[in-house]
Amino acid sequence: MRAMNLTLLTDLYELTMMQGYFKNPTHQIVVFDVFYRTNPCKGGYAIAAGLEQVVEYIKDLHFTSDDIAYLKSLHIFEQDFLDYLKGFFFSGDIYAIPEGTVVFPQEPLLKVVAPVMEAQLIETAILNIINHQSLIATKASRIVYAAKGAGIMEFGLRRAQGPDAGIFGARAAMIGGCVGTSNVLTGQMFDVPVLGTHAHSWIMSFSDEYTAFKTYADMYPDACTLLVDTYDTLKSGVPNAIRVFREMKDAGHPLTHYGIRLDSGDLAYLSKEARKMLDAAGFTDATIAASSDLDEYLIDSLKTQGAKIDSWGVGTNLITSSGHPAFGGVYKMAAIRDRDAAEFTPKIKLSENTEKVTNPGNKTIYRIYSKATGKIRADLICLAEESFDEAQDMIIFDPIDTWKRTKIVGGTYALRELLVPVFLKGECVYQSPTVMEIRDYCRKELDTLWDETRRLMNPSEVYVDLSDRLYELKKALLEEMGSASIK
Amino acid sequence: MRAMNLTLLTDLYELTMMQGYFKNPTHQIVVFDVFYRTNPCKGGYAIAAGLEQVVEYIKDLHFTSDDIAYLKSLHIFEQDFLDYLKGFFFSGDIYAIPEGTVVFPQEPLLKVVAPVMEAQLIETAILNIINHQSLIATKASRIVYAAKGAGIMEFGLRRAQGPDAGIFGARAAMIGGCVGTSNVLTGQMFDVPVLGTHAHSWIMSFSDEYTAFKTYADMYPDACTLLVDTYDTLKSGVPNAIRVFREMKDAGHPLTHYGIRLDSGDLAYLSKEARKMLDAAGFTDATIAASSDLDEYLIDSLKTQGAKIDSWGVGTNLITSSGHPAFGGVYKMAAIRDRDAAEFTPKIKLSENTEKVTNPGNKTIYRIYSKATGKIRADLICLAEESFDEAQDMIIFDPIDTWKRTKIVGGTYALRELLVPVFLKGECVYQSPTVMEIRDYCRKELDTLWDETRRLMNPSEVYVDLSDRLYELKKALLEEMGSASIK
Repeated sequence: MRAMNLTLLTDLYELTMMQGYFKNPTHQIVVFDVFYRTNPCKGGYAIAAGLEQVVEYIKDLHFTSDDIAYLKSLHIFEQDFLDYLKGFFFSGDIYAIPEGTVVFPQEPLLKVVAPVMEAQLIETAILNIINHQSLIATKASRIVYAAKGAGIMEFGLRRAQGPDAGIFGARAAMIGGCVGTSNVLTGQMFDVPVLGTHAHSWIMSFSDEYTAFKTYADMYPDACTLLVDTYDTLKSGVPNAIRVFREMKDAGHPLTHYGIRLDSGDLAYLSKEARKMLDAAGFTDATIAASSDLDEYLIDSLKTQGAKIDSWGVGTNLITSSGHPAFGGVYKMAAIRDRDAAEFTPKIKLSENTEKVTNPGNKTIYRIYSKATGKIRADLICLAEESFDEAQDMIIFDPIDTWKRTKIVGGTYALRELLVPVFLKGECVYQSPTVMEIRDYCRKELDTLWDETRRLMNPSEVYVDLSDRLYELKKALLEEMGSASIK
Repeated sequence: MRAMNLTLLTDLYELTMMQGYFKNPTHQIVVFDVFYRTNPCKGGYAIAAGLEQVVEYIKDLHFTSDDIAYLKSLHIFEQDFLDYLKGFFFSGDIYAIPEGTVVFPQEPLLKVVAPVMEAQLIETAILNIINHQSLIATKASRIVYAAKGAGIMEFGLRRAQGPDAGIFGARAAMIGGCVGTSNVLTGQMFDVPVLGTHAHSWIMSFSDEYTAFKTYADMYPDACTLLVDTYDTLKSGVPNAIRVFREMKDAGHPLTHYGIRLDSGDLAYLSKEARKMLDAAGFTDATIAASSDLDEYLIDSLKTQGAKIDSWGVGTNLITSSGHPAFGGVYKMAAIRDRDAAEFTPKIKLSENTEKVTNPGNKTIYRIYSKATGKIRADLICLAEESFDEAQDMIIFDPIDTWKRTKIVGGTYALRELLVPVFLKGECVYQSPTVMEIRDYCRKELDTLWDETRRLMNPSEVYVDLSDRLYELKKALLEEMGSASIK
């Protein structure tokens, strides 16, 4: 039983709060921000992903009669509220940073401006989708970075946390830069390349390894990667593969896409030895693929050791983002106004931890690029109504350590607003690019980072600053709440 | 776009291998085992889960015309094979250990006996489902264990790895012993308790905390848990909650299910102080719930520190099994026979690592219980045709360290076969219990373990032994493959 309608994919408290608002009508329009506080895997950035699925979720929001009957059965909800739910649809605005964009902590990746009941219902599913796909896209981009141009194949479906984690995780992995996935359903749904050859069981179902290889090569001469570690990689697997390649060559096959796959053992040693054997036999263009519990650190290490591996299959550690399996995005109220009021009242959530105090107000983000290098100079979170003149100097400062200030000289930088409208008054105004288009865009996005920010360990941080007006507003609100914030 | 039909939820190589078998017809019937090698989180056991979803997946297996058209578009598959897929259905046998059973490494949790093409196609989805749910059920059981009788609420949907990870993760968490979930869709799909009250945004949308609490309490007097950490837990939150509880009491409410929730800060300190304040105000039966990046180790530590917490909401670390986010189940060929042959030929997969050598043959598992204590004495993996007499002594020995031997005296033990038929000749012969029934069964299962095996760190292992016949068979196969297995 697989749910198609995800309207009930929400936390119960969203519905109890909704009924609370329904029974105590406030007619409030609220602003909620989705943002995160720490980059995955101690990295220098994240990749925004999941927006297409958020759009589909919002478009499809509706309570079926089964949903209403179920909610009624909980004996928490009253009939007038359930009647309201029957006609529920999303009527608000959503702005978001496009998928594939590099993003940094504290920035609203998505902003909801909507009646409070609507904004509350959609919190959980939006977080679920954005958190998952942004996590996997980020992890994939790290693994792709480690491979330094060699292709990364996404092979994790069997270890993903359920069907969707496999399906949408592979989608996100493609956005992050993988060359293909083993997941056929993702291939079908998102028109991305699917890859794969055979398993150990193929070898074991034949009387011997040579016959298994030979049968496979006869079937798939144009995409012939032979798995060589079922019995003994160097004594049996590679020699049998070479025998089959030689027979193919002798039979006149052009041998364009062929090679071997290592799936266990010491990949550094085995790949170097296998390379020598293939080269000595004249198969210098045979590729060596490797898989076996890989992640960005292992690939980096194998590269350093001079492993002769041309492409990498990465499963478990990519599809679960092992080591950092949750993105940590949150959904926080930033402003509120009565339906008929012109202005939002900014809201702030206090915390004993300075970094956890939220940024108030209806905001947007400008990315500041250096005209000379095309790289990101800093990001600026500001109020939505602010505007800036690229001809003027800009002073940016760290919102935590405010004494750290830098002047960016007018004329040397270009600004880009990151949030784009996705829904306006409930109407979708955004057309998602294809996954392969997002993948291309993401590669260009990653080029706007210095290598010091992309590296796997101890990266340089990109500054995310607050505009003067936003900073003053935050300070004023903190002072206003004064006594409550002092322990 | 959410897929209902999961037939293409498979790795491409399953399909390329299927075509290989189709084109080189062998009429082979194969035995594949699903098993895992290491308990999650360095624990002493795992909980089998996910079988109900495997059953639904198998029942629903079929290639739609869209699926066929997509596969054709890949230019890998020939028309006769695609025609075969059009009529594809599962015609084999599946045996499995029922959900909620405690299980150990090397044991087949599920066994497929089917024509090789069918057995190959279903590998990936079966592993995906069993790996995910067994992981989360196991993690949940560890967290429940740490709470020593206080309820664990599953609150992880927003951090789960996609919708299914939230939906089926919550299902598995219930099997592992949670008292309820915040996930409304899981509540609807599986008839399990849903829980939750309100978020910080509820407090922030009112002019002050007291008004927010009061409004909530008026709405939900019979399930009134107030979140007290929006501004200042001890100076504002708890005093405002007490004021509201007092007003409810004065108004004649029976105050049966009420209390506070802590969601940040030092939970040990805050819970003890809040307890004192509630008690001093006469609300000794007000409960204190806590949430905030909890896991089994933190709960254990807070218990040791004497935290006064009656129930726990656990999100991220439960729903992602943080620290160990993949179960590692594999699907290995164990035996093969021609369709008309009576006997299976056992198969073994070698490895440089002794523990990774597979167990050959068509097998089953007997659990050996001590009649005196009801606890598990050991598990015995044997060939399917073997039988044992409980009146006879039984010698068990460790399959790795074979010198470790123990005699179990006849008459003192009881045997139970763990694998039960689920599909026979393609027909489903198994009726899944409800999730709450599985949860009850799982609690009894956990009682068959000694506390030394359940404890969170450095648990005692339960022996999983091979029968003499299986051990001799494995040894003979290893010797037969002799030269290949010696490096």
